[in-house]
This record gives sequence, structure tokens and C-alpha cells, in this order.
Amino acid sequence: MVRWEPGTPERLQRAALELFATRGFEETTAAEIAQSVGLTERTFFRHFADKREALFHGQELFVRAFVAGVEAASPTASPIEVVAAALASAAEFFPDERRSHSRVRQSVIGRNPALQEREVHKMASLAAALADAFRARGVADPAATLAAESGVTVFAVAFVQWLREGEERSLGEIATEVLGELRALTSAV
Amino acid sequence: MVRWEPGTPERLQRAALELFATRGFEETTAAEIAQSVGLTERTFFRHFADKREALFHGQELFVRAFVAGVEAASPTASPIEVVAAALASAAEFFPDERRSHSRVRQSVIGRNPALQEREVHKMASLAAALADAFRARGVADPAATLAAESGVTVFAVAFVQWLREGEERSLGEIATEVLGELRALTSAV
Repeated sequence: MVRWEPGTPERLQRAALELFATRGFEETTAAEIAQSVGLTERTFFRHFADKREALFHGQELFVRAFVAGVEAASPTASPIEVVAAALASAAEFFPDERRSHSRVRQSVIGRNPALQEREVHKMASLAAALADAFRARGVADPAATLAAESGVTVFAVAFVQWLREGEERSLGEIATEVLGELRALTSAV
Repeated sequence: MVRWEPGTPERLQRAALELFATRGFEETTAAEIAQSVGLTERTFFRHFADKREALFHGQELFVRAFVAGVEAASPTASPIEVVAAALASAAEFFPDERRSHSRVRQSVIGRNPALQEREVHKMASLAAALADAFRARGVADPAATLAAESGVTVFAVAFVQWLREGEERSLGEIATEVLGELRALTSAV
């Protein structure tokens, strides 16, 4: 029986997360990550610019999932309906099986300013990609930017809630609720 | 007649902006910035951790202006009314006399990824400070975070518009309009 083996970047990413979580980010070197899965430092740097990047592997797929939701929405949908569609699509990228992995990742990021800065940058890239997708649908600025930023904000708030100890709702359910809260907030007089 | 002399950090900041704009950020050293106003590199590093920080001097005052608007709003104001008050307060920090300086600063930042990352980080800190100010008013999460993030988004969109060539409206006017667009967007069915 042949067991499916994840690719090299995935193995390095998993090893990086484990070492960062147990020993600490600063205390772990790229060479140690590589060695822990029987690879060389050189192989590590063929896949990642630095050890920080190992935690952000797969980011393009996440952005892709978000943007795909915008692209797949009905042409007659209002921008806020498109935001809802994008959130639903992004939420599918995080099924419940992934919750404990995401918790570990988030706690590693939360303990390190350089990783937090990288995470903030990732969300800014996501917002830029989403705004482009809205413009491609014919939504003019500033609405395109506002819709994109609102989608990212709702996602970020929902994601933190999804990771909370004891939370059992899916990310999609939580995102729908948070979007509702944003709408209630902005429409209040 | 005694002419008012700006303090050392302000002089270094102004010199840094001028050199970054004319020669480029990468091409300018901290020593050169200091020397251009008759100071030493050592003095530069007494005020700033690195040359990047010279462009972000005064950031606390900006965050302060924003948060002061939240704190000064009527206790009965709804969160979105408080966002409007915070935007008005933040806009006063950027009178029209400051527009050309801000244009130069923004174009320097726009040309350099490290500066962009720092700017994104600055806006994230602002959002965190604003969310705290909302919580201090008794606004629970996620509304506190959503209101804070919406305020920052509206500010950022309005600020880009304020800097545009030919734009003559004040930042406050533009921010009011953008907030209106956000409200229209999120309330559409």
C-alpha cells in the first residue's frame, strides 16, 4: 500500500509549526526545521525565503478561495451580497478538521511581532486582491475598496471567534453572524 | 526677533523625507540624514531606531487625535455616530496646509515595500487603539472591533482621495462622504 506523502513545502511547513510551537520561533533555525524531517537547509531555502515564510505557505490558495467567491457571485448581486458569497467561499477553506492546526498557528503568531507584522501584511494583500475582483465586476471605487475591506474585517473577526476555546460553530456560520453585526452597526441611526 | 526652531526629531524627520523623496529611501543613510541638518548619526539613533522610523514620527499624536474623537463623543451616541466623530477629530490633524507634505510622504512610502509594511502596521495599531476606546465606552465585541476597523477603512480611503492631484475638499468632508458610501453599501439589500 502506498501512503500519500505530502510535498516538501507542506512537510517543512508542518515541521516549522511544530518546532515554533514547542521551542519558540526565535529559538528555531531553518536548518533545524529541515533536519527534523530529514532535509537540508539548502532545500528549505529553495522553498522559502526565510523561516517566517514557512508559516505562510498556501497563502495564495486562501486568497484564491476568497476571490473565487466574488467571481462566482451572480452578476446582479449587490456588493454586500458578493461580500457574503466571498466569506462563504473563504470559510470552506477552513473546515472544522483544521481548527486545531489553526489554533496552534495563531498562538505561534500571537507570540511573535515579526509574524504578526507578516500576518497583517497578508490581510492587506488579501484586501487588495478582493478590491481588484470587485472592480472587475464593475463596482467603482470607493465602493470596491470599502466592500473588500469590510469582507476582510468580517473574516478576521470571525476567524478569531472560530479559534476560541469551546467554539463549535463553523467558520461560515460565524462569518454570517459577524456580517450581520456589521450591517446592524452601520445602519443604526 | 527669535525664530521658532522645530525640535530635533522634527528636523530629522523633515530632512529624511526630503532625502528619501529626492534620492530614494534605499539610497539614503541615517548618517546622511543627520549630516544634512548638521547633526551626527549618533543623535539620529537617539531619536529613531532606524531610518524607516523617521517617517513615522508623530504617529502617537495621530492615534491620539483619532481616539480623542471617540472619547469626546456623547455617551448616548451610537457606535457609527462615534465613528463619525472620530473621523472628524482625526481629519483636524490634517489641515489643508499639510496636504503637499503628505503627498510627498505618501509617494515615498508607495515606492518602498518596507515602508508600506510599516504603514500597514501603523494602521493596525490605530485600529487596536480605537477598538479599546470603543470597549471603554461599553461597546461589546465584535461591535467594538467592527466599528474601529470601519473607521480606519473609511479614513484610509478618504486619505488617498484627499491626496489626489486636483482634490480640493478637506479631509473631513471627504471622510463624511466615504462613511456615507460605506453605510449605503452595507445597508443595500
